Amino acid sequence: MAKNIFYAQSGGVTAVINATACGVIETARNEPRLGKVFAGRNGIIGALREELIDTSLESENTIRGLRSTPSGAFGSCRYKLKSIEESREEYERLLAVFRAHDIGYFLYNGGGDSQDTAHKVSQFSLEMGFPVTCIGIPKTVDNDLPVTDCCPGFGSVAKFVAISTLESGLDVASMAESSTKVFVLEVMGRHAGWIAASSGLAKIEGNAAPHIILFPEIKFDKKKFLAKVRETVDRVGHCVVVASEGIQYEDGTFVADTGLNDAFGHSQLGGVAPVLVGQIKREQGYKCHWSVADYLQRSARHIASATDVEQAYAVGKSAVEFAVQGKNAVMPIIVRREQDPYRWEIGEVALSEVANVERTMPLGFISEDGYGISNRCRRYLAPLIEGEDPPPFKNGLPAYIRIENKLLKKKLPKFNVR
Amino acid sequence: MAKNIFYAQSGGVTAVINATACGVIETARNEPRLGKVFAGRNGIIGALREELIDTSLESENTIRGLRSTPSGAFGSCRYKLKSIEESREEYERLLAVFRAHDIGYFLYNGGGDSQDTAHKVSQFSLEMGFPVTCIGIPKTVDNDLPVTDCCPGFGSVAKFVAISTLESGLDVASMAESSTKVFVLEVMGRHAGWIAASSGLAKIEGNAAPHIILFPEIKFDKKKFLAKVRETVDRVGHCVVVASEGIQYEDGTFVADTGLNDAFGHSQLGGVAPVLVGQIKREQGYKCHWSVADYLQRSARHIASATDVEQAYAVGKSAVEFAVQGKNAVMPIIVRREQDPYRWEIGEVALSEVANVERTMPLGFISEDGYGISNRCRRYLAPLIEGEDPPPFKNGLPAYIRIENKLLKKKLPKFNVR
Repeated sequence: MAKNIFYAQSGGVTAVINATACGVIETARNEPRLGKVFAGRNGIIGALREELIDTSLESENTIRGLRSTPSGAFGSCRYKLKSIEESREEYERLLAVFRAHDIGYFLYNGGGDSQDTAHKVSQFSLEMGFPVTCIGIPKTVDNDLPVTDCCPGFGSVAKFVAISTLESGLDVASMAESSTKVFVLEVMGRHAGWIAASSGLAKIEGNAAPHIILFPEIKFDKKKFLAKVRETVDRVGHCVVVASEGIQYEDGTFVADTGLNDAFGHSQLGGVAPVLVGQIKREQGYKCHWSVADYLQRSARHIASATDVEQAYAVGKSAVEFAVQGKNAVMPIIVRREQDPYRWEIGEVALSEVANVERTMPLGFISEDGYGISNRCRRYLAPLIEGEDPPPFKNGLPAYIRIENKLLKKKLPKFNVR
Repeated sequence: MAKNIFYAQSGGVTAVINATACGVIETARNEPRLGKVFAGRNGIIGALREELIDTSLESENTIRGLRSTPSGAFGSCRYKLKSIEESREEYERLLAVFRAHDIGYFLYNGGGDSQDTAHKVSQFSLEMGFPVTCIGIPKTVDNDLPVTDCCPGFGSVAKFVAISTLESGLDVASMAESSTKVFVLEVMGRHAGWIAASSGLAKIEGNAAPHIILFPEIKFDKKKFLAKVRETVDRVGHCVVVASEGIQYEDGTFVADTGLNDAFGHSQLGGVAPVLVGQIKREQGYKCHWSVADYLQRSARHIASATDVEQAYAVGKSAVEFAVQGKNAVMPIIVRREQDPYRWEIGEVALSEVANVERTMPLGFISEDGYGISNRCRRYLAPLIEGEDPPPFKNGLPAYIRIENKLLKKKLPKFNVR
């Protein structure tokens, strides 16, 4: 009998992870060798709690609508399964739930941690004599998975950040004569500077924003930074800074760690942008504005990259195809076939090669002074933000779908998730 | 002989103020009774310095491109002319520059201050026997000009804020089970809560974001706010807060004024969102995320409201038509003719009636508990974000135009701007 699929979303969501879900479900629906697609409510937690969403109850239109709806429609989670030795009962529970609901395929949509989990579940299921086909599906705005040319989710953040830099750069330029001279935009990126780097695509001529990009890969040197700000204001008339949230001083302390205390002695929450602006205002007196993009950048489906949407859909589709072909413990990846014109295709990699490996920016992607991107980096990034794929709109707002998320009837006793 | 027009942009720029410039220049080019349009470089400062941009040197395509380019293409400024008694030499200088360049029309595109200035210049020019036709053109993201139904610039900020609330609300909803429970989005609005209110349009069903809106019109009560956050998390599973930058405690101190000092005793820069998040984390322990939209919200031409773009263009066009018709010291306004379907037309108001009058939110627009918008408010706001008018794109980015801004040859001695 055709086995069912268990699909789960993991970690921080993106503008296009639902496009991947759409690829999974649409492809599985057209494949007679497969049963239904069950989605984990709130990711892997849903499997442990036996909270399985029956996607077969959703209409074709609703599933199609996932392609243009941001965030995780079934709920995601931050929950990492530990090693099999440490959490054997969790792995056993997963298999019990899979067995109870006739699930033969585990498709796990996430970053490095999730690929690691998918890999472990694959091994454990073999050991236990109940083999489950495990396919990892890449997703991360941080673009930090190895082997794949890029990660679905990243291209859309990159596009949002590049456009926001372009637009706010024009704003500052028009105000600078008598008002704001410096604008600081804080973007995501704790360890890898890919998102900050994407702002560099907005620099379509020499004096355009961004004028300074701060990467977590480069130690923050306050004196050098302030000198660069002053030099830029003197030369251009204003200065736009794009800062990764994770930048650190030479000694490893985070710049966002202000060391500030309130009246009760509680330490004050970070945010790199206000700290940088504080330094600039105190030492140089320039009028500043700052923005923290936070969730706005990763949920901005309204301006998603068409390339990213297509790739997100394709990895979902390919994951199902891999499963049907009998592949196991692999992850579909994006392979760049040609640069100009950009052509890509889906390839594959063993989960053992990607689990827990983090890819930071190659140093050759950062310009020599450490404050910009190289032409190589620009060539790499440019195609990833190509194309627009706006969602349908209704009453001036994107018509994002809401899924009903009806749960399967439980068959097993309760299991307490830590 | 046909007199020239002087056009200047003033105050904080918007996503559509250049659409107004486009309306001014295209209309004037087709009007044989008018000369050229000269734009002030950096607003009124350009007139005082005799830095006049000759827009007749720009191609039709470039001028058309202004319609879809955010920020102030000629530069704006924060520079308020004082009373005629206090700054007589500035008014005299303006008239001298107008006389030297055969300028008979002054079109001033800005908020309440600018309408006041246009009004004063009109009076002064009459007194001096060199009558200049002065037309104010409304522009402000704050939507705080009186008489007009709405202000060009506001609809696009409203659309960006509503969409960002919708998108980040979906993001938090999918993370809340195991991670972020509360998200705080800080938006502009020092005195008027129009922008924060627009987030309420995202609430398309009862449990959708935003769950709490903080208006500057309502004193901030920390205890009541925290209770509402907890109640929302208990009921919905998460909570999205949209906060106006200008909210104040009962005693009038700004919530953004943290009273925090760094190691050197310098007071720490504000930002309402991190302060609210600090309160929530300390007293309730919820995991929080926060964003400060700042310039991103007012420069987001990529997702401008089509209604707003049309109205911005129309007030520019009408200002020129008013000038030709011999009207003086007036401002074109938006008149709402019908609600459903929405129909608007251009009307006019005397500058004396709008100068220095600020319109805050009617209290009937705020829901009874003070944390949301009423149905009346929703009906008012809804049509203003209607329609999309995306700019042309190239290489994945909006193809915003850059104008050459060639200056007229100066004829007068230098004048020092304070």
